[in-house]
Amino acid sequence: MNYVSTTAVTPAVSPFDALNLTDVTAKLEDSILIVTLNRSRKMNSFSEKMAADLVRIFQFGDQDDRVRAIVLTADPTAPAFCAGADMEEVARGSSLLGRKEDTETEHRDPGGQVAMAIYNNRKITVAAVNGHASGVGLTALQFPFDFRIIWSGSKLTIPFVRLGIVPESTSTYLLSRLIGESRATAVLFSGAVMQPDAPVISNLYFQVLPDRTDVLPAAVILAKNIAVNSSQTSIAYSKGLLHHAGSSIEENHLLDSRAMKLLGSSRDAAEGAKAFMQRRKPNFPDALSRSLSPWYPWWKVTDVRHPKSKL
Amino acid sequence: MNYVSTTAVTPAVSPFDALNLTDVTAKLEDSILIVTLNRSRKMNSFSEKMAADLVRIFQFGDQDDRVRAIVLTADPTAPAFCAGADMEEVARGSSLLGRKEDTETEHRDPGGQVAMAIYNNRKITVAAVNGHASGVGLTALQFPFDFRIIWSGSKLTIPFVRLGIVPESTSTYLLSRLIGESRATAVLFSGAVMQPDAPVISNLYFQVLPDRTDVLPAAVILAKNIAVNSSQTSIAYSKGLLHHAGSSIEENHLLDSRAMKLLGSSRDAAEGAKAFMQRRKPNFPDALSRSLSPWYPWWKVTDVRHPKSKL
Amino acid sequence: MNYVSTTAVTPAVSPFDALNLTDVTAKLEDSILIVTLNRSRKMNSFSEKMAADLVRIFQFGDQDDRVRAIVLTADPTAPAFCAGADMEEVARGSSLLGRKEDTETEHRDPGGQVAMAIYNNRKITVAAVNGHASGVGLTALQFPFDFRIIWSGSKLTIPFVRLGIVPESTSTYLLSRLIGESRATAVLFSGAVMQPDAPVISNLYFQVLPDRTDVLPAAVILAKNIAVNSSQTSIAYSKGLLHHAGSSIEENHLLDSRAMKLLGSSRDAAEGAKAFMQRRKPNFPDALSRSLSPWYPWWKVTDVRHPKSKL
Repeated sequence: MNYVSTTAVTPAVSPFDALNLTDVTAKLEDSILIVTLNRSRKMNSFSEKMAADLVRIFQFGDQDDRVRAIVLTADPTAPAFCAGADMEEVARGSSLLGRKEDTETEHRDPGGQVAMAIYNNRKITVAAVNGHASGVGLTALQFPFDFRIIWSGSKLTIPFVRLGIVPESTSTYLLSRLIGESRATAVLFSGAVMQPDAPVISNLYFQVLPDRTDVLPAAVILAKNIAVNSSQTSIAYSKGLLHHAGSSIEENHLLDSRAMKLLGSSRDAAEGAKAFMQRRKPNFPDALSRSLSPWYPWWKVTDVRHPKSKL
Repeated sequence: MNYVSTTAVTPAVSPFDALNLTDVTAKLEDSILIVTLNRSRKMNSFSEKMAADLVRIFQFGDQDDRVRAIVLTADPTAPAFCAGADMEEVARGSSLLGRKEDTETEHRDPGGQVAMAIYNNRKITVAAVNGHASGVGLTALQFPFDFRIIWSGSKLTIPFVRLGIVPESTSTYLLSRLIGESRATAVLFSGAVMQPDAPVISNLYFQVLPDRTDVLPAAVILAKNIAVNSSQTSIAYSKGLLHHAGSSIEENHLLDSRAMKLLGSSRDAAEGAKAFMQRRKPNFPDALSRSLSPWYPWWKVTDVRHPKSKL
Repeated sequence: MNYVSTTAVTPAVSPFDALNLTDVTAKLEDSILIVTLNRSRKMNSFSEKMAADLVRIFQFGDQDDRVRAIVLTADPTAPAFCAGADMEEVARGSSLLGRKEDTETEHRDPGGQVAMAIYNNRKITVAAVNGHASGVGLTALQFPFDFRIIWSGSKLTIPFVRLGIVPESTSTYLLSRLIGESRATAVLFSGAVMQPDAPVISNLYFQVLPDRTDVLPAAVILAKNIAVNSSQTSIAYSKGLLHHAGSSIEENHLLDSRAMKLLGSSRDAAEGAKAFMQRRKPNFPDALSRSLSPWYPWWKVTDVRHPKSKL
């Protein structure tokens, strides 16, 4: 899908119109794509449509060269950042727990689809968590991000084993990687209501702020600081190296050597060195749509769409 | 082995009689199996028999549906929670360092057998460390647990490289996963005597309590809270997903989608949702002995018994 | 290469003469090899020659039985511990970003060569960071060490994505392993200038000291404590088990059982047990040059020298 090339963007037509967003809103502010959950009256509970909207808007952000960072947030006056799955929808047979007609190997968890769209994003992603969060409000809407900034008063809980189901949205993959298995186990199984400064979960957060209304501005400042100062291609290769490290130090040495050789002779590297020497902000000319080597991505991606995909 | 089905349990016959436990004691309190190290006079040093007893009682706990969580502890007045290997037994040629008649590839570390029986347990496991611990008293008797609660005065040390041997009980696998390699390296090599609130080891502990006698009660409260509120099958699948995550986010998505589809239509999920809506405690009907899908376990388990097993 | 056997060491001839060190200095103090960065006037910036010197001296330390631990430090009055790459050399076409004549798959990052020489070292390694550090001054000169001791006033920053290049020196492999991906992502992408006690990076450090001049002495005390009390072969096997853990708990059980059987019957283990019983310091007789089993190393090492090496 290439949302950008099919539309002549004019001031009157939002680039997001074709995305049919309803359960989130989006705006592009300078080079920062700000996505806001749009179900405040339902405590921003996670619906099938919200999942679809999030996948679309994060894919847009991944592919549009104007976007350098993506921030996800909610209305700071909402009763919650995200109160978990929409239980009414679940009661009606939502795809969150698997549609009846799907077989055991056909189901694809919507929260996991969102988590992959965020974690695999080639732009910097920041979660601005300005309210309480439960379940998928943590697993899909916090864990896959590069940075998490949170209101210190947020109440956080992971209820899956108390609901007879399992932690989803690839959280059993992400959480141990993020904060280690000792903390991850405690977060997933204790059932405790945690606050962001609790030792068990604090390592997850880049910043913890006392005022709900300060969370989004802090996230935008961080995002803009990175956006203005960083090379888009550098971010993409570096996230690739971090998420798909070699299986040994030697393999990683081969990978980062190759990435360094590729980027070391790029126009962005020339500009980066020049700006550094001249003590000024860089003006990087490269962009993802035209500057990636055929080598990228170098890792094999399991195709999760194939209904016969098995492990 | 199915200890349960072979015995008609009556008040007069303990379900543990057939296990011939000597170096640990066991009792089933509500749905919590409490295991107590029983060598206080020898500082609860780790003997071959203690290893065998621990493997048997944790396997019992894994297989008996009445058990929802397992707590390991010691007498809070004992000189140590576990002072390490029984050095007299080692001096007599204990299997801890390998029996003389075993070849290099035949030896199977008893501490590792215990660690696997705990780490692979499908029930929640809690270590209630109410005293000092050294060597195997950490590696086998703390690292493999889901939760560790400890007395703040505990002195902790890992002496292996000072004894001319190596960290055992799968500790080189577990410790990096639990708290990261930076801290793991320091714990294994510094030789320092640490206390639980030292930054180098603090991430390992869920709770640190100032009074030795409070450690077991706190562990039982945690275990009961999880036991009463959680689905046994949810715990088993979730531990499987955490300990055997996909090798990529995509693979994990396939795994947790399948687990969600399986459990999402289970009786436990129906009861979990109903109890949540009715704001009451759930009464989960499923049990491991009869409710696991043939898909579980989905990971390949290396058979460590085979004497020719090589890597 | 075997630097030791080719030279008759006499008091007048330094064992390091054959290494032609210029950008670092080295001395052997008791069993501790102390390596000092020697480009204070250039802020200890990382040159091609410094990389070559570091690889040589760490390989020397790995292979010389007299060396039990290696400490890297800088002049505590220098303007920086290491201010990053020598940008003048980079401007002249340094191999740090890849030589012009190298193809994409031929380049081998010099910082990565240093990182591997340190991380794969069979002796204990300690970084004594007594000044500011940037880029390769963290990635190659801190991350691969067993222990990091640092001056609390050190300013630390990772600028790669701001220079249009990528984190190198195997840092995308090491940093997540060391402190978890949540913190690693923040350190690599935020562009922030951090101090050692910042939560985002503090887990990396074993000790943080308020006085620059105390950092090297503390590192030497730690190194000597380990050197005097630990078996050289135990350290080598234990680092191998930690860096090359099994891919499952079962595989690790087979590995550490075999290592335990091998070392459990070694002369070092006999001496270790005897010294422990007699409450005296051990005097370990084994040494790496003559006491390793043919099984060591048990892991496959990717040969990074081969120009056709691909992933």
